[in-house]
Amino acid sequence: MVNVGIIGVGLVGSELLSQLSTHRSSNVIPKFSVVALKNSSKQLLSSSDYAPLDLSNWKVALQTHGATSDLATFVEYLSSSPTPAVIIDNTSSQEIASQYSLFLRKGLHVVTPNKKAFSGDIEYYKKIVEEAEKNKRSLLHESTVGAGLPVINTLNDLIKTGDKIVKIEGIFSGTLSYIFNEFSSLSGNTKRKFSEIVKVAQENGYTEPDPRDDLNGLDVARKVVILGRIAGFDLDLETLPVENIVPESLRTLPSSSEFMERLPEFDHHFDNLDQTAKNSNQVLRYIGIIDPVNNEKCVKLVSLPVSHPFASLKGSDNIIAFTTQRFPNPLIIQGAGAGAGVTAFGIFSDLLKIYDKVNA
Amino acid sequence: MVNVGIIGVGLVGSELLSQLSTHRSSNVIPKFSVVALKNSSKQLLSSSDYAPLDLSNWKVALQTHGATSDLATFVEYLSSSPTPAVIIDNTSSQEIASQYSLFLRKGLHVVTPNKKAFSGDIEYYKKIVEEAEKNKRSLLHESTVGAGLPVINTLNDLIKTGDKIVKIEGIFSGTLSYIFNEFSSLSGNTKRKFSEIVKVAQENGYTEPDPRDDLNGLDVARKVVILGRIAGFDLDLETLPVENIVPESLRTLPSSSEFMERLPEFDHHFDNLDQTAKNSNQVLRYIGIIDPVNNEKCVKLVSLPVSHPFASLKGSDNIIAFTTQRFPNPLIIQGAGAGAGVTAFGIFSDLLKIYDKVNA
Repeated sequence: MVNVGIIGVGLVGSELLSQLSTHRSSNVIPKFSVVALKNSSKQLLSSSDYAPLDLSNWKVALQTHGATSDLATFVEYLSSSPTPAVIIDNTSSQEIASQYSLFLRKGLHVVTPNKKAFSGDIEYYKKIVEEAEKNKRSLLHESTVGAGLPVINTLNDLIKTGDKIVKIEGIFSGTLSYIFNEFSSLSGNTKRKFSEIVKVAQENGYTEPDPRDDLNGLDVARKVVILGRIAGFDLDLETLPVENIVPESLRTLPSSSEFMERLPEFDHHFDNLDQTAKNSNQVLRYIGIIDPVNNEKCVKLVSLPVSHPFASLKGSDNIIAFTTQRFPNPLIIQGAGAGAGVTAFGIFSDLLKIYDKVNA
Repeated sequence: MVNVGIIGVGLVGSELLSQLSTHRSSNVIPKFSVVALKNSSKQLLSSSDYAPLDLSNWKVALQTHGATSDLATFVEYLSSSPTPAVIIDNTSSQEIASQYSLFLRKGLHVVTPNKKAFSGDIEYYKKIVEEAEKNKRSLLHESTVGAGLPVINTLNDLIKTGDKIVKIEGIFSGTLSYIFNEFSSLSGNTKRKFSEIVKVAQENGYTEPDPRDDLNGLDVARKVVILGRIAGFDLDLETLPVENIVPESLRTLPSSSEFMERLPEFDHHFDNLDQTAKNSNQVLRYIGIIDPVNNEKCVKLVSLPVSHPFASLKGSDNIIAFTTQRFPNPLIIQGAGAGAGVTAFGIFSDLLKIYDKVNA
């Protein structure tokens, strides 16, 4: 039995609890007990016997019986577990990410879709990777890139078995995937304006509340930094070249609504880019690149020939191509890279790996 | 330290030894010791202290110092290892596959690209899966489908986390991928005859010595059975509908050369199929299908629209699409699915999983 404590019970956390609850009821011998839950204001800990919390009404229980949120108590409780315990960080909080080092030293395994620790300060990143190894604890984060798509595991396997990376290329943002798949294609769709597509994406909840937080490329940059570090390159958010496609004069506008109001002024700019691409039978795609051969690591808007696997992408799918010594034709992984269901799936897969290890 | 014994040192085995040897020399603390090697005539065991064999000249050593091959002695030696030990079966032998049960009971972990045990008698399959679990030993076979592509692990993760399979579809044979990618495409290549393409494939070593062993679909059927069983369907080679595309009158010809000589008689047959597909803007692809919704599990030649992800496949790549409840747009994995380098990579990845477990 592995005891599980969950920090962050929003969309992803709720979905994970639902998946774990179904799993528990369908397995004769349950593998996981959720014994602790926490959001930013309240937390719920099971009793001293670490009996599983009732997952059928955790929301009400957290709200009505929860104590005031206190990370120290939460961690203390989990690390006193008589069986192996995992802490899951479903937040995007830098504050929680900065505690992984403590979690690991306290004997906890860590699973998270939170990109901060893996794309932030490189010394801290190296420290927690070392601490996980030294303490024989797992620090798993499949869902930080491409949600549940097997991206991190595959890259880890390639690297650890001694393959040589020739190039890593990908579309890592579901939002930017959607926007450019809609905006720039060679099929004869009635052409929509860039600003209209962004508006639809915003209205459907595909973007951050302020779409500039997608269009600035920072989220993609974090993912490139994460993959690059696994591949052995000390990438840094501060120095990675990132193409911010928010028009310069709109970057400092105070509100999202002002930005959306003025974005149509730049439709001709994006139309020009698209037309130039089309003239060479190409389409626009916003990609991350790690290319050690040509010493290029960056995030940018590029034109790709229609025969390129990224050109025929649909919806908001992510795609990643690993070109290596053993895979001169790239190993390609493609599918939904955002959303609660697939993010929780990635977290759950990581949990199963920990279960398998501690029960070996 | 994990001690490793390798049965089968042909193309894949040699490549694996080379990858393991490089790994050993590049890691300060070696994870694996190859302590036993065996082919069908000779075997080489290290001493009673399980010191690693010298991998720089194992071929000569096996040839000149090897004892007569004897599986019982080989297994006895490995299972007496003071540290965890793995037996790797790089053969395609049914005889070796039928010993996995013994290997597991003797406390050995098993890793293999050999499809026989996983696609053969279903009772034996269930027995070894149970025995692995009961004895807490790993039985890993990533390389049985799509070589090192993360196919088995991904399917296992989907199933174990409670996702529901809607459809699994794939091109699982590098040979048939190559033949139909060359033969049937909508780009304006100078059209070659089916028999010519098979001939080139044979001459380049892409096919089995007798190409009928590819064209009969049996290899693809084995892979579909393996995936189906992981997905919870008790598929059986004997009952799975498999389209054998070897023309009926050529099936009983005694030799491969007679077959190749007479194949051109059927070029018009394949041209007709291709033309019919083209007339609806489609291409021919030889695929395996597991479709529980429509209760269809089979292997067959189909026509697919050019917009289908399988239509734009290149070279001899494999591709697999998992459509599930969580991935209504399928999770797609694509890349080289055959060859010594990528097969050994899959085996090596499995080995690393065992190392991680026994050192948790």
